[in-house]
Amino acid sequence: MADVPHLSPDEFRRRGHELIDFITDYWRSLQSEQAPPVSSPCKPGDILRALPEQAPLHGEPWSQVMADVRSIIMPGITHWQHPAFFAYFPANSSGPGVLGELLSAGLGVNGMLWATSPAATELETRVLDWIARAVALPERFLSTAPNPPGGGGVIQSTASESTLVAMLAARQRARAADPADRREPVVYCSAQAHSSVVKAAMIAGIADGPGDDLHARRIETDASCAMIPDALETHIRRDLAEARRPLYICATAGTTSSMAFDDLGAVSAIARRHGLWMHVDAAMAGAAAICPEFRPLFAGIEAADSLCFNPHKWMLTTFDCDLFYAADRAALLGALSITPEYLRTVPGDKGQVIDYRDWQIPLGRRFRALKLWFVLRHYGIEGLQEHIRRSCRHAELAESLLREDDRIEIAAPRSLCLVCFRLRAAPGESTAAADRRTKALCERINASGKILLTHTTIPDPASGASRSTIRLSAGGTFTQDRHIRGAVALIRSLIDAPA
Amino acid sequence: MADVPHLSPDEFRRRGHELIDFITDYWRSLQSEQAPPVSSPCKPGDILRALPEQAPLHGEPWSQVMADVRSIIMPGITHWQHPAFFAYFPANSSGPGVLGELLSAGLGVNGMLWATSPAATELETRVLDWIARAVALPERFLSTAPNPPGGGGVIQSTASESTLVAMLAARQRARAADPADRREPVVYCSAQAHSSVVKAAMIAGIADGPGDDLHARRIETDASCAMIPDALETHIRRDLAEARRPLYICATAGTTSSMAFDDLGAVSAIARRHGLWMHVDAAMAGAAAICPEFRPLFAGIEAADSLCFNPHKWMLTTFDCDLFYAADRAALLGALSITPEYLRTVPGDKGQVIDYRDWQIPLGRRFRALKLWFVLRHYGIEGLQEHIRRSCRHAELAESLLREDDRIEIAAPRSLCLVCFRLRAAPGESTAAADRRTKALCERINASGKILLTHTTIPDPASGASRSTIRLSAGGTFTQDRHIRGAVALIRSLIDAPA
Repeated sequence: MADVPHLSPDEFRRRGHELIDFITDYWRSLQSEQAPPVSSPCKPGDILRALPEQAPLHGEPWSQVMADVRSIIMPGITHWQHPAFFAYFPANSSGPGVLGELLSAGLGVNGMLWATSPAATELETRVLDWIARAVALPERFLSTAPNPPGGGGVIQSTASESTLVAMLAARQRARAADPADRREPVVYCSAQAHSSVVKAAMIAGIADGPGDDLHARRIETDASCAMIPDALETHIRRDLAEARRPLYICATAGTTSSMAFDDLGAVSAIARRHGLWMHVDAAMAGAAAICPEFRPLFAGIEAADSLCFNPHKWMLTTFDCDLFYAADRAALLGALSITPEYLRTVPGDKGQVIDYRDWQIPLGRRFRALKLWFVLRHYGIEGLQEHIRRSCRHAELAESLLREDDRIEIAAPRSLCLVCFRLRAAPGESTAAADRRTKALCERINASGKILLTHTTIPDPASGASRSTIRLSAGGTFTQDRHIRGAVALIRSLIDAPA
Repeated sequence: MADVPHLSPDEFRRRGHELIDFITDYWRSLQSEQAPPVSSPCKPGDILRALPEQAPLHGEPWSQVMADVRSIIMPGITHWQHPAFFAYFPANSSGPGVLGELLSAGLGVNGMLWATSPAATELETRVLDWIARAVALPERFLSTAPNPPGGGGVIQSTASESTLVAMLAARQRARAADPADRREPVVYCSAQAHSSVVKAAMIAGIADGPGDDLHARRIETDASCAMIPDALETHIRRDLAEARRPLYICATAGTTSSMAFDDLGAVSAIARRHGLWMHVDAAMAGAAAICPEFRPLFAGIEAADSLCFNPHKWMLTTFDCDLFYAADRAALLGALSITPEYLRTVPGDKGQVIDYRDWQIPLGRRFRALKLWFVLRHYGIEGLQEHIRRSCRHAELAESLLREDDRIEIAAPRSLCLVCFRLRAAPGESTAAADRRTKALCERINASGKILLTHTTIPDPASGASRSTIRLSAGGTFTQDRHIRGAVALIRSLIDAPA
């Protein structure tokens, strides 16, 4: 037999060291004066054209691969780890997070069942309990919850999947309660909730499409962009009256556009009254609950049926790592469990262990608990609290510097690490014209390559009209005060620049 | 402000080198005489008890973390990369695959939109086209397919997600064709298809649960474990007659239990006649199509609407990496696209680029194309062909050695890298009793820690009765002839061993 040309152990070691050096140098360059533009300057098709049309027939030298990484791939990277990346949300990575991902890849285990690597399952169970305690969740969300079969946490890939899995559990619980009920189900979220709620309803077959508000209702929000509980109550009553079945409500703790918080206590009271499953999407903001001073934002979460938040956003854990907690494991397993003979194991059959494949959409799963464990061990709770607090202080600093400029107005109250602002209408200027200037400003800022921001629209607190808004999301691993000061100076310098 | 205790660049470099060394040594140890047991000897709760109940308040030294990796985690690992891991399916990792995963983690980009890292999208598009050509898929599955909006490939996490995404696209296509059709949809697969097909139907809201055969039909299989096309036709006709809507068929190219192949040509003819979406699940076997001599197994795949296979199984690419191809991009986008303001981009709005978030369940996504590209560059098509051929020769070798023992019978024709065997009933012994001995043998083998196999049940080709069967799945990255010889010698030595 011809030999398969694997890297020899010594070659792997050497190339691995080189790649660690490459990443070290990359991170250092992002923090230096020679940093590349935050956003890739590539035009559509640039990378495609630089790549051959056929795969190589013969293997190529590693040095050639790394040369192509430098010359073809790197110019096409938008640098999420850049300290002046203020777009979307922080996608925190960190040394310990990357090392955890590396170890997971090196071990190459598939944690679909307890038996396929007990450590992958039990480390995940323990670390999820650690975090539940660290963010002050009640005992019912811990794997140690006494009521059978109890609750527990699991790592999903993204919050989109948690939103969907929770919806499936809601449907399962309703089905178990009354299998004969054939009313059409309805799910609810606020008009400011993440698009993944409606997408989950489409996937689950509850909504026919993104515009199907009859089955995926987006509830009106108030001036602060929070769901109006009375509006929720009204919609539920109407759906009941019209013989639809209210099934599930996704409350948002920290909306994408402006980091607004639904009143979880008020929403959960309504959910309980009508028997809805209440899921809390705290994808971005949830990490803040590790600091006691931010926990009041989440008041009421203790009554939820499930919730999620993403350490891959704001807790220094390399993407992907979404934490999903449910208080009722039975509904989850009922919705997602299916066991053919080739997946049966003795401890699984005896119910002695958790098989996490029954808690998620896919069967296979990576050993993602390692990176989360590495992060927790390295930083400790205190280190993570410091990261959260520092990000919020960065947003405070940005807000105060933006307020120094009369041409700018803060579009929504600063919330945690997010600042939303826009251009103030000049005397005699319409708000529509000011909005066009805001949007053009965002494009000019991003085109500069110095920083990256995201454009959105949110209702004006005073008028309720939808207004063009720029988001500055702090929280990057490497972000320092100077990056905030530089960002605001750049924003101000570009306000009156030519388009 | 207190400082967040990030690893300094030099510390990261040093710990990274150490971890690369750890992985190098780990892989070497797996191939040595001092290899650990393939399957973790841990009992339920062993790892949990070794881990503290609370997260550390203060960060801990890295050396302590790595000491715990060695003493707590490693004994709880079932070694999927062990050369005598013959269970489930190969979960190929490789040096280039791990390095690609490491670079992806180090860059820390989220490829949800083209704009959030053009290289992540365009490298994926190009590499998926490379592979489509390498496995001889027709042009309609390539991103360059001319008919608007054409086809293309995308990396999903697992085949379960591809199965689901294809089902959602099928529903979308049917809905677009006749929005007023309110018949209940039915999906089909064979009785030997992977459990993820029924799970997908549960998630999509098409089936009420794992036992809902009215909406998720498992079609009878023949002596070779392949779907009986006439039985499919009969079920479809009955469903049409009873006013249900046949929607989707998942054909299997390489079943989990015995690597059986549905007749894709016959199934696709039926699918076309009745307007069903045909998805082909080639999760494990698909990689074999890189070798021309194995392509006849897949005859008929060219008429499918979608298909998937997993380089993370048998193409040396570190988990997760499932390739999903669809010929009709419009149905996919219709099922999964939803664009709020904060995700809009200029090139996205103009349709100049692919935004892969619209091709999958989650929004966020890792830069997984890197590891696949590294694997293709390093091995070349020829190196990957050699890996596939060597795995198949290993299975041939195992089969011929097993046949030398009269106490053993081959349970199904060897297919690619999988051998299925069981104990022959002794004179006067019932098949049920022989089956109990087969199952007990599998448990004894696995308890030895020397190799790992999976137990399943498949129909006996002669009688059709469900029979206990042991699967030996070759294809490991580090597997050599000697591991195959050692495995069969061990199996034979344990046949008559005391329980």
